[in-house]
Amino acid sequence: MMYRFAERFDGVGGSEIRKIFGLLGVPGMISFAGGNPSPDLFPADMLADISEQVIVDDGKSVLQYGGTMGIAHFIDVLKEKNKEIMKEDDDLIVLSGSSQGIDFFARTMIEKGDVMLAESPSFLGALQTFRLADADIKTVDLQEDGPDTDMLEAKIKEYNPKFFYTIPTFQNPSGITMSAEKRQKVYDICKQYGVLILEDDPYAELRYEGTPLPSIKSLDDCGLVCKLSSFSKTVSPGLRVGYAIANKEVIAKFNLLKQGADVHTSNLSQTLVMKFIERGIYDDHVRMLCETYKEHRDAMLRAIDIYFPDGVSHTSPQGGLFVWVTLPEWMDARKLFDACVMEKVAFVAGSPFFADGGHENTLRMNFSMPTVNQIETGVERMSRVIRQYEFLTK
Amino acid sequence: MMYRFAERFDGVGGSEIRKIFGLLGVPGMISFAGGNPSPDLFPADMLADISEQVIVDDGKSVLQYGGTMGIAHFIDVLKEKNKEIMKEDDDLIVLSGSSQGIDFFARTMIEKGDVMLAESPSFLGALQTFRLADADIKTVDLQEDGPDTDMLEAKIKEYNPKFFYTIPTFQNPSGITMSAEKRQKVYDICKQYGVLILEDDPYAELRYEGTPLPSIKSLDDCGLVCKLSSFSKTVSPGLRVGYAIANKEVIAKFNLLKQGADVHTSNLSQTLVMKFIERGIYDDHVRMLCETYKEHRDAMLRAIDIYFPDGVSHTSPQGGLFVWVTLPEWMDARKLFDACVMEKVAFVAGSPFFADGGHENTLRMNFSMPTVNQIETGVERMSRVIRQYEFLTK
Repeated sequence: MMYRFAERFDGVGGSEIRKIFGLLGVPGMISFAGGNPSPDLFPADMLADISEQVIVDDGKSVLQYGGTMGIAHFIDVLKEKNKEIMKEDDDLIVLSGSSQGIDFFARTMIEKGDVMLAESPSFLGALQTFRLADADIKTVDLQEDGPDTDMLEAKIKEYNPKFFYTIPTFQNPSGITMSAEKRQKVYDICKQYGVLILEDDPYAELRYEGTPLPSIKSLDDCGLVCKLSSFSKTVSPGLRVGYAIANKEVIAKFNLLKQGADVHTSNLSQTLVMKFIERGIYDDHVRMLCETYKEHRDAMLRAIDIYFPDGVSHTSPQGGLFVWVTLPEWMDARKLFDACVMEKVAFVAGSPFFADGGHENTLRMNFSMPTVNQIETGVERMSRVIRQYEFLTK
Repeated sequence: MMYRFAERFDGVGGSEIRKIFGLLGVPGMISFAGGNPSPDLFPADMLADISEQVIVDDGKSVLQYGGTMGIAHFIDVLKEKNKEIMKEDDDLIVLSGSSQGIDFFARTMIEKGDVMLAESPSFLGALQTFRLADADIKTVDLQEDGPDTDMLEAKIKEYNPKFFYTIPTFQNPSGITMSAEKRQKVYDICKQYGVLILEDDPYAELRYEGTPLPSIKSLDDCGLVCKLSSFSKTVSPGLRVGYAIANKEVIAKFNLLKQGADVHTSNLSQTLVMKFIERGIYDDHVRMLCETYKEHRDAMLRAIDIYFPDGVSHTSPQGGLFVWVTLPEWMDARKLFDACVMEKVAFVAGSPFFADGGHENTLRMNFSMPTVNQIETGVERMSRVIRQYEFLTK
């Protein structure tokens, strides 16, 4: 059968990360790839107890069709949680993970060929979603304190983009956090030119040091910003629960798209997260996650400083799940990856995170999933392969 | 803020059914609107027990990110369940309800302005999804035994559509079932012209009499058919679990779209359905549903025959959730709806189910949600209003 597929798939190959998952099942493999939370930290007993109880007590509504916007009481709980950033004209919709909000925002705004801006590097899954929405992706380089605002303004003037996609806090993949000053500056520039901002902020609560920064949405006084949040990193990714906050006109479009996408997010998943928050467990749980992930991050940064040779630089994020590593110019992280897999340690090469490609000497390392011991052993293994790379090719 | 929304939203108003849900909360209201399963029949205790157990026993994987195609073992269970209809080159992907498959298939095949065919009348939510996918919807009239195949062939010749969307069994909204002969004929015609078939079959297992008919997918020898199935009517809609079976080239596109849509369907929802099937409860549960819904259907058909005046005709489906009613030509089901709501009985006017509009004298009645007593009382209330309609306007 010769299928007449829509053109949007041309050149879209699927997530590089998901492709290498197969390799990671090898016994003894230490993986810094992926971005999974630590399974040892899931509040399983608590969620098991809640789920059993809510289905018994409230099965007739939990198991029935629900509203497309989400469970009314859950929406109230989320609005309360976000009362600092929600504006008069804003609305909130529950999503099946915040990824769904990236998909919906793209389909709400993008006509085939419309230009939008993304940070360079940026989240791989989002870039693929924008491509499948027929968007023409232009990029803005990241600096240590966030996007290059001169480049942002220049690209806006040049391309009149529909929106700018940013992950302001502990960015995936770079671990970079946009400074308070830049948040204001990015907002002011985008407002000046009427360019919307899609603020994807799933890591903000995973801060291990330093003071929390204002969400860009909190600066919004004209419905410019759509903010996406997720419980995948703080409660459980397997439940698929996130939400979007934006002007009600935008959320109304999300509602129409969600009616077709999945009608509504699993009532059971919504109820588990709702009860987890209502029982007052959420904040303590996130505090525990931060303490534990801080140990992971410290172990990774310490091991990198001890083992990695000179000429290898890296970010030192105050939170999140990732450290971004830059190898010497002449190294190719893909070749290094193949050699590292032989030594049973894996990471993700950085090039695919750049919409324009290049940057073959960069890579991303996740520290949430591996244990502290695995981190130390894995970094030491990587360092040996990096040194071999130097010996064998110089 | 003047938003530059994508044109796809122009003229899309959202589901008519979801709009009237508000009215249905009125105390004493008997609703034949909507298409919800009976909440009294949900296997709540069983699912509560399963959920508590799987999170305790298997929380580290159930609560973690999962594969985009679905939980491997669940996929095996579903392939076993469908071994009669799956072909060598077919693949299966778990979806967040079968609605997601309608959305994915449209986005896989439709370029802006491409033509596709739908039955007239057809499922409201699907029509909206096709419009949001920029499809140009042409229609094929339904007859007592399924679509008018002469019209199907004529429209194919005229418009060269990408695919034909059909709900072959106990169709929503009409309750009509495509005969075995027509299933073969529809398949042969579509194959002859290379027009794909999207077979949406969520009601097939809810058969109360008569012999099961072959799925159109079971006739497929060239990857022409994508079949969508759902557990929303047989286990629980609130969990959002369905799946698609199609040629692996098509499922590969679904996989790419699902990576962006929701990454994967809730692992907890998948696991609940999987265990429900594995424990051998599923078949008995569906048998119980059929026995109970048969009583509901019989009660509705009996009450209609007793109370509705001459000149009102209706379908007598062998299964599913809906009876389709045709009023005298000069009646307007929307006016009747307003008058009926005053008498605390609701249904859905039929016109919105027709992509081309018209048919103001038709309406859909659901018999799964109301109790047998409510069905008898509600039909009697409706019949009084229909007679008033005659007295007051003739």
